[in-house]
Amino acid sequence: MKASLRPRLTVDQFAEGILRGDRVILGQAITLIESTRAADQSAGAQLLERIISKTGHAIRIGITGVPGVGKSTFIEAFGKYVIDQQKKLAVLTIDPSSQITKGSILGDKTRMEELSKNPGAFIRPTASGNTLGGVAHKTREAMLLCEAAGYDVIIIETVGVGQSEVSVKNMVDFFLLLMLAGAGDELQGIKKGIMEMADGMVITKADGDNIKHATEAQAEYKHAFHLFSVAESGWTPQVLTSSAHTGQGIGDVWNMITKYKAHTTASGYFDKNRSHQNIAWFQEYFEQLLKDDLQKHTSLHDINRKLAKAVGNHELSSRQAALQYLEAYHEAIRNSREL
Amino acid sequence: MKASLRPRLTVDQFAEGILRGDRVILGQAITLIESTRAADQSAGAQLLERIISKTGHAIRIGITGVPGVGKSTFIEAFGKYVIDQQKKLAVLTIDPSSQITKGSILGDKTRMEELSKNPGAFIRPTASGNTLGGVAHKTREAMLLCEAAGYDVIIIETVGVGQSEVSVKNMVDFFLLLMLAGAGDELQGIKKGIMEMADGMVITKADGDNIKHATEAQAEYKHAFHLFSVAESGWTPQVLTSSAHTGQGIGDVWNMITKYKAHTTASGYFDKNRSHQNIAWFQEYFEQLLKDDLQKHTSLHDINRKLAKAVGNHELSSRQAALQYLEAYHEAIRNSREL
Repeated sequence: MKASLRPRLTVDQFAEGILRGDRVILGQAITLIESTRAADQSAGAQLLERIISKTGHAIRIGITGVPGVGKSTFIEAFGKYVIDQQKKLAVLTIDPSSQITKGSILGDKTRMEELSKNPGAFIRPTASGNTLGGVAHKTREAMLLCEAAGYDVIIIETVGVGQSEVSVKNMVDFFLLLMLAGAGDELQGIKKGIMEMADGMVITKADGDNIKHATEAQAEYKHAFHLFSVAESGWTPQVLTSSAHTGQGIGDVWNMITKYKAHTTASGYFDKNRSHQNIAWFQEYFEQLLKDDLQKHTSLHDINRKLAKAVGNHELSSRQAALQYLEAYHEAIRNSREL
Repeated sequence: MKASLRPRLTVDQFAEGILRGDRVILGQAITLIESTRAADQSAGAQLLERIISKTGHAIRIGITGVPGVGKSTFIEAFGKYVIDQQKKLAVLTIDPSSQITKGSILGDKTRMEELSKNPGAFIRPTASGNTLGGVAHKTREAMLLCEAAGYDVIIIETVGVGQSEVSVKNMVDFFLLLMLAGAGDELQGIKKGIMEMADGMVITKADGDNIKHATEAQAEYKHAFHLFSVAESGWTPQVLTSSAHTGQGIGDVWNMITKYKAHTTASGYFDKNRSHQNIAWFQEYFEQLLKDDLQKHTSLHDINRKLAKAVGNHELSSRQAALQYLEAYHEAIRNSREL
């Protein structure tokens, strides 16, 4: 809402600003694509088409882990290392909890304080939206804008609750799982399926008294990864330890990702995976558009309300109501041409 | 497939057989609604409309718990108790793992052996389907058929993996969570959000040396439930212990459910909840129909393939492809009238 009070840039101005790496304009452009106003959405779509050919060169890294694993601290240390390698870094966040609270639970202002002051880094807190799908679309589009603005490394962080890991996995090249070395059973507390998604794992907080635990956990997870069937990428996930405090292992994480990229580029998997991701995104965009299309036909709102009422009163079966609503949608599409 | 080799009953014959409580015809009718053949689906839809006014009188109970909690043993003991109360019982299962394995992981034949021989019980193993949504639709329709056939108590069992609990919660009146008293932290191993969904909890295997642990777990979970905000139903979930071996507590579970029904019927929540469930099912059916509709327009298949190819080759953005596909869908709907 705030953005619309400012004099609005044209799509051309946005595109030019992004392509020359203007951080302020990049930030405004992300606000534009996050906007739910129809005019903004149309401008956002045009902007994306303008910059799409300039996207795709970055390495896209997804990072997840349970709350308390030290994600922000890790990303701060890792981010600084990446910038020291003369790479421009963008960090975006997917936070599905913001669907409910209409705001981030993360207290974004105090997170990654040093990194956010670094001119080589662009940090963007979570997009908001009504559905995880909607949030994920916007994060992916923000990623494309960052690529067009010349960022070489994009980190998509997820807060590690709900379904957001799958969304992130589907938009990145490398999916990194952060783990704590716990006392007791090291394999507790991991959501089923998440290890299968990981291309690499880092045991965090491997410093001081915790080094022994971290090394034990590393061995255990390495073993666990060997029990999985080989991923389509042909890559065996590596398990590393790191400490954001001492800096131990941070460079190794970057080396692992570089190695992964070289390995999968040589095999052709890297490009193939991106192709598949694009196709999956096409299908997801389509589902989103279909939902928007139903909203757009205002004549359907009343019909939906009446059908829902009849179904709620047990006067009509849910299935019959659905059939009648589909017929009404068809009719609305037919009439919309005749206008 | 097997059913279609037999001489097929007419919709009238199915409806009459179900309404007089014929178990064989009920079983065949469930096979009919589970079928993916177009003719079967049409007959299944007609059948549901024929019997819909005879549904709704049963108490619908969802039961979940992690593998190993003793769900089958509990349902066997609980089911016999219910039948002893002169109630007819149907047990249906949602098993999302069958999506992947194309079969149940449960070894259905050996489960609930005694109950399956009881003339007062109707046991139906898992429906299969391509999506959890599809499986859930079919389970819900099977539930409606069972109600029309005069079953007073319907148990929908979920295997306690994946997302099926939410589907089950959305089709039942009472959601029962089975728990094991474990050593160590009693609150480990529960999926986030599942306790909030429960209307009651039973600590199973409360016999012999395990009674002490079960009673401790009971106190701990009671406390946990008191920390939650009061549910919309106004009902505070009860925590019971039971043993399928000694029979201890089995009757208490039935009393709890009876009490819940009386409480929520008096407050109006019982009917309100069913209304809301019907409306949610209407929306879900509609989404399913929309997907089917896209499949039905064969002209769209080629367009989808071409767009996916262009997107995969990075020649077209995912968003543009989605827009073009929506336009093609509109065109197909318009043309379908003109034929």
